[in-house]
Amino acid sequence: MKTILSFDIGGTNIRAGLFSDESGKPSFTKKVKTTTPNRSALENIFSLIEEILSQYPSLDAISMAVPGSLDNKNGIIIKAPNVDGWKNVALRQIIADKFGIVPFIENDASMAAYGEWKHGAGKNHNYILYITISTGVGGAVIDNGHLLTGFRGLGTEKGHITIVEDGPLCSCGQKGHLEALASGPAIASYFRQRMVEGASSMLPSDPAPTAKKIAEAARQGDALAIEAFRQAGYYLGAGIANYLHIFNPSCIILGGGVSFSGNLLYEPFYESLKQHVLSEEYMVGLEIKYAQLGDEAGLIGAYQWSLDNS
Amino acid sequence: MKTILSFDIGGTNIRAGLFSDESGKPSFTKKVKTTTPNRSALENIFSLIEEILSQYPSLDAISMAVPGSLDNKNGIIIKAPNVDGWKNVALRQIIADKFGIVPFIENDASMAAYGEWKHGAGKNHNYILYITISTGVGGAVIDNGHLLTGFRGLGTEKGHITIVEDGPLCSCGQKGHLEALASGPAIASYFRQRMVEGASSMLPSDPAPTAKKIAEAARQGDALAIEAFRQAGYYLGAGIANYLHIFNPSCIILGGGVSFSGNLLYEPFYESLKQHVLSEEYMVGLEIKYAQLGDEAGLIGAYQWSLDNS
Repeated sequence: MKTILSFDIGGTNIRAGLFSDESGKPSFTKKVKTTTPNRSALENIFSLIEEILSQYPSLDAISMAVPGSLDNKNGIIIKAPNVDGWKNVALRQIIADKFGIVPFIENDASMAAYGEWKHGAGKNHNYILYITISTGVGGAVIDNGHLLTGFRGLGTEKGHITIVEDGPLCSCGQKGHLEALASGPAIASYFRQRMVEGASSMLPSDPAPTAKKIAEAARQGDALAIEAFRQAGYYLGAGIANYLHIFNPSCIILGGGVSFSGNLLYEPFYESLKQHVLSEEYMVGLEIKYAQLGDEAGLIGAYQWSLDNS
Repeated sequence: MKTILSFDIGGTNIRAGLFSDESGKPSFTKKVKTTTPNRSALENIFSLIEEILSQYPSLDAISMAVPGSLDNKNGIIIKAPNVDGWKNVALRQIIADKFGIVPFIENDASMAAYGEWKHGAGKNHNYILYITISTGVGGAVIDNGHLLTGFRGLGTEKGHITIVEDGPLCSCGQKGHLEALASGPAIASYFRQRMVEGASSMLPSDPAPTAKKIAEAARQGDALAIEAFRQAGYYLGAGIANYLHIFNPSCIILGGGVSFSGNLLYEPFYESLKQHVLSEEYMVGLEIKYAQLGDEAGLIGAYQWSLDNS
């Protein structure tokens, strides 16, 4: 058996996991803050590797799921503003130079999808559309067992498709993207806007409530909160209908914090999906599931990816 | 060398080609009308196969590019309204039963993309976005040499993504799809609508001009005709920007009759693409080319597909 050290590097936390059997379950995990008062993200990664190498000196591989824009051919993080402001960080080379092991470096959404495919919600499928809805909307696609990456590894921006030309401003600077219509901040922003317009809610308008608070209010029957989720679900359905036409998956996996809002989002999403799909043929044999691996999806995916590609 | 009989079955014509070397060039081609006064599409296909079998009794494979919704796992054409009203035609089984050769059956846009990849505009690329703009908007994607098909072979509907929620009606019954904004009929329909609104043009409004006529008028400086192409190019740019974010191709191949309108469409398309793309990273190393194989792309692709998959 191989011993693989896997990482999922996020803006807030770095998760590390050690895998030494084929169960897909780490024998050891550790979570640290990505940046700490005296240490950069890179220093925290180094220190985790050193700590684990001291106990397991014969690691077979290191694999890393990373956020932001990644040039996956060269293992260079082009831009990951949430991680220490990373820009053009040649992570593969840096790790290889320091530890003598050339790491696998892939996009975090792709690795989470890969983990869900091999060990989670997508186990019995070969055509998977994985969509995460949280601060952003992201995702990945597996077609007949092939993980799509694109020429330079940038093909994972599933939230950045125009649904409403000239719609609300997206985090990327464009308008009317799926992310600007269905993410957590999009829900909060719609809610706030309706409050400004004079709609009433049980929630105070100041400070502006988060999608999580809005979900709680919706569960207590707050009409405006329910409306905000209905709106997001509607656009999520329109966006995912596009993806059915493009990818014809057999399984949609919904992940990310906003997907935990359950039927609040799911019901309007599913209604809208059926309304937007161009033919019922796309619904034949289609399973829609929630992600099962939670916060460990990226870690588990990165481990499995390195195992399958080495 | 293998001898392969390839077909591209369309609503108007059936093209057949015989391939007996690896040049990608057919040694023999024949084009017949899909339906003739006394014969159905199937009868015309049978007769072409019989004719060729009489001269080349030892065919190694038959390969067919077919339009419409295809269940490619089972070789069943779910719906191809343009071909004799085909519905649930078990083409693979029908051919196998009649000729004792189990044919390859794939989607026509996928096969055209495959042909362009192996023998045409995409030769030096492995990440291809192929988009055809004619009566409809269709296409296919190759990611790291893998042709995307989807679970049941339905993942080729590149024209059916919502760009303008509640936009113009699409041929599929949905609204604001790329096809409803950038196809030939979309250009004609926009032009007609602007005439109804009182805009003037050198073209008579009755009968309503086709996209081809509009292109001719645009080349002669007709402002409304130019505007109609600018509009289509704008939405094509928005749609293809989505596809850059989803697929990150190294090569975009534009095919189909409307793409022959050259700079009329290309300039507004390219301007809009640059405007809609979320980061210049997606333009790095990107080549945008016109399709090179013309009407034979599907035929050549189907031949190469059968060669690579047998």
